[in-house]
Amino acid sequence: MPQKVRIALDAMGGDHGASVVVPGAAAALERHPDTEFILVGDAGVIAPLLAQHAKLSAVTRVVHTDVAVKMDEKPSQALRHGRWKSSMWLAIDAVKKGEADAAISAGNTGALMAMARFSLKTMPGIERPAIAALWPTLRGESIVLDLGASIGGDARHLVDLAVMGGAMAQVLFDLERPTVGLLNIGVEEVKGLDQVREAGRILRETPRDTLDYVGFVEGDDIGKGTVDVVVTEGFAGNIALKAAEGTAKQFAEYLRSAMRRTLMARIGYLFARGAFRALRDKMDPKRSNGGVLIGLNGIVIKSHGGTDAEGFAFAIDIGYDMAKYKLLDKINRMLGLPAAPPRVAGAAS
Amino acid sequence: MPQKVRIALDAMGGDHGASVVVPGAAAALERHPDTEFILVGDAGVIAPLLAQHAKLSAVTRVVHTDVAVKMDEKPSQALRHGRWKSSMWLAIDAVKKGEADAAISAGNTGALMAMARFSLKTMPGIERPAIAALWPTLRGESIVLDLGASIGGDARHLVDLAVMGGAMAQVLFDLERPTVGLLNIGVEEVKGLDQVREAGRILRETPRDTLDYVGFVEGDDIGKGTVDVVVTEGFAGNIALKAAEGTAKQFAEYLRSAMRRTLMARIGYLFARGAFRALRDKMDPKRSNGGVLIGLNGIVIKSHGGTDAEGFAFAIDIGYDMAKYKLLDKINRMLGLPAAPPRVAGAAS
Repeated sequence: MPQKVRIALDAMGGDHGASVVVPGAAAALERHPDTEFILVGDAGVIAPLLAQHAKLSAVTRVVHTDVAVKMDEKPSQALRHGRWKSSMWLAIDAVKKGEADAAISAGNTGALMAMARFSLKTMPGIERPAIAALWPTLRGESIVLDLGASIGGDARHLVDLAVMGGAMAQVLFDLERPTVGLLNIGVEEVKGLDQVREAGRILRETPRDTLDYVGFVEGDDIGKGTVDVVVTEGFAGNIALKAAEGTAKQFAEYLRSAMRRTLMARIGYLFARGAFRALRDKMDPKRSNGGVLIGLNGIVIKSHGGTDAEGFAFAIDIGYDMAKYKLLDKINRMLGLPAAPPRVAGAAS
Repeated sequence: MPQKVRIALDAMGGDHGASVVVPGAAAALERHPDTEFILVGDAGVIAPLLAQHAKLSAVTRVVHTDVAVKMDEKPSQALRHGRWKSSMWLAIDAVKKGEADAAISAGNTGALMAMARFSLKTMPGIERPAIAALWPTLRGESIVLDLGASIGGDARHLVDLAVMGGAMAQVLFDLERPTVGLLNIGVEEVKGLDQVREAGRILRETPRDTLDYVGFVEGDDIGKGTVDVVVTEGFAGNIALKAAEGTAKQFAEYLRSAMRRTLMARIGYLFARGAFRALRDKMDPKRSNGGVLIGLNGIVIKSHGGTDAEGFAFAIDIGYDMAKYKLLDKINRMLGLPAAPPRVAGAAS
């Protein structure tokens, strides 16, 4: 029998906690029946929810804790109050101990990054972890990183991000040699920040079998899907992500109000309802839920705090794929390091 | 009789040169009959186009030159080849000499910025010029700067941008005390780049009558219209702009293909055609054409290179408003400097 993929869930994270996490896990299990779960959180809250999902109950172990990290806690506070005992910490700890292959939390991003870094440590040779996510494009999906973990960064950091993003694209898109671009404000080699130009030089002069560096890309290339992996530091990456989200909301709002303005428009809307539904699915942020905390000795996925069960299930799917297709080994290989030690030995500390 | 607004146009700039600039000027003149134009470029090309617009001909003086800056020239090349004699230079020079109140070019951005800076110099106390533009939002429009002129920048630069953007909002939106936000990756004071936090501290601790600093805003606040003025350095600003443009294109493309997929959708489209047209107008990038080169001793507007006559006319409108409502004097006042000397004395050099 093939090995199961074991996923630890912070059941108390996010705006809705266990009421989203438990049905989310049930939905993900339908898609990937070879999953086992560890649900970490208040057993009194989890048990009645879990009782509604027989299949999930059969493959889930509950780890009880009273402590939960709050959504507005600063990373330092969260570490002080929640280390060793919070649901977020214990989910990550299950990965560290080799009891789980991935941890998923919809909790506070800063706290999750701080705890994951403290517990799992960064991979050998990687200085700073990053957040990588799938971005829907006109060609399908691309990976964009960093979306806000590392603020600023030198050329070396950008090269690390390119390598890690490349490995993630190999895993998620099943590509031999994903195309990688550096986000810049012009495609000419003379433009932009020094560190971006320097990273471009390094990537050009040291070609790798595992990724195809194609040069600079601009902000509108992300949505076009010009490359499989878009690399930037976290400040610009977060601003690009949020600006795109803002524009998508704007467009949806304009469309909604345009379709209500006249009787003819309302009739048209009725006819084209199916098409509008397809469009809504296409633009649905739930489907790209799940940021991967990358560069750590373990797989940790950040779900949006406000997502619903369906969205949370998408974040679990990402963790599942990353574990199943051995992301960490691929990154190690791309970095020229040996594959991770077998399970249970856990991560380096 | 009230004074005319005198606008110098680089007739050779952009992908389409005079064939867009001349009808664009004619369209702008319809809206603002108190305008006079100086058209700089190849008189042999301009004359037949101008002959088609009697009203425009009556208020236009043509200044001939054979030299035009190419769209792909580097700023240094453009300065070497085009200084003193190109259509771009001479349009800016008309502002410098006090013969025009604003210059508009659809030419190469880097060259335009370099020439404008070389010729007009930055305003006293301002180190680096910026590009500011109108961004359509759910509440109307906001001003976003810098969109790519200044890459990186310290707290002082961001404060300068806030002051200049505030003055521009006073002029364009007719507001006493526009709201201003600093673009960051979280609204909490602990987050983001040091220089952004420091700029926030300065703006908070030295309140001004002319702008209302409201704190940090995130990328999705731009589209929401949370503040009248969004301030950021040019790298992040350009990436936000392009990411938003990319998303808008993506959405339009999804919508187009959704409306073609089924017969029902096509019927719905026919009914709702008017609504779709309104939506297209709303998302039309032409309507937000015209980036203001701000921080210089003179008004220079950059039009998109690929725009059509209608789009170019919108860029002229911006220059008209900035001149008519005395942007430079307002910025000077906000900076605590005396108003600009009267016309013809021209700009400080």
